[in-house]
Amino acid sequence: MSSSIMKNLFACLPADLENEQFDELLRAKNIRIERIVSKGHTSPETGWYDQEEHEWVLVLEGAGTLLFAEDNRQVTLRKGDYLHIPAHARHKVVWTEPEELTLWLAVHYSVEDITACE
Amino acid sequence: MSSSIMKNLFACLPADLENEQFDELLRAKNIRIERIVSKGHTSPETGWYDQEEHEWVLVLEGAGTLLFAEDNRQVTLRKGDYLHIPAHARHKVVWTEPEELTLWLAVHYSVEDITACE
Repeated sequence: MSSSIMKNLFACLPADLENEQFDELLRAKNIRIERIVSKGHTSPETGWYDQEEHEWVLVLEGAGTLLFAEDNRQVTLRKGDYLHIPAHARHKVVWTEPEELTLWLAVHYSVEDITACE
Repeated sequence: MSSSIMKNLFACLPADLENEQFDELLRAKNIRIERIVSKGHTSPETGWYDQEEHEWVLVLEGAGTLLFAEDNRQVTLRKGDYLHIPAHARHKVVWTEPEELTLWLAVHYSVEDITACE
């Protein structure tokens, strides 16, 4: 029942980033919260993200641009901007700030229906 | 399948705050994300928060102190600090920054077990 130890989202930021860095902050049955640190990275390398789970994403520092396959829409998120990406909404990161770190907070969750037992 | 419209977490911050302000950013089956804005407020008015859901909480601006009933532990969260509060871990906010806004991001979620059908 005890609460967890406090941690800081801006701690342990890498000085230099060869690859995007993914840190899991919380994992439970239907939810996963992660911090993503980018610096000029785009992803995925090829193709699109096509995720089983819904994602709520917030940019805390820096900036990044998402491209959505469905309507070719580009959205640039800067500090404080957030967006909901439904499961299977194919998207990719086409740009992130090259000169400074971009810090994303992503909440992945599933809402699969519970089949009632009769 | 479309992604939602982008919004900003720092938008529409009240200039003056008589009461704490709660804004729901996302609600789905097992998850609720809210922004809370405080300025010198403490809560609840009397007693303790004793929540049915787990809560992951992050401070984005300002500072606030939580008190936990179980062990009388006080934890002050400042910018970037986050903490997990399990369901039914009784707690209250005993202090928030009186001179500036404190911005909290709270992710409430439930992980109730699905009873297997046999």
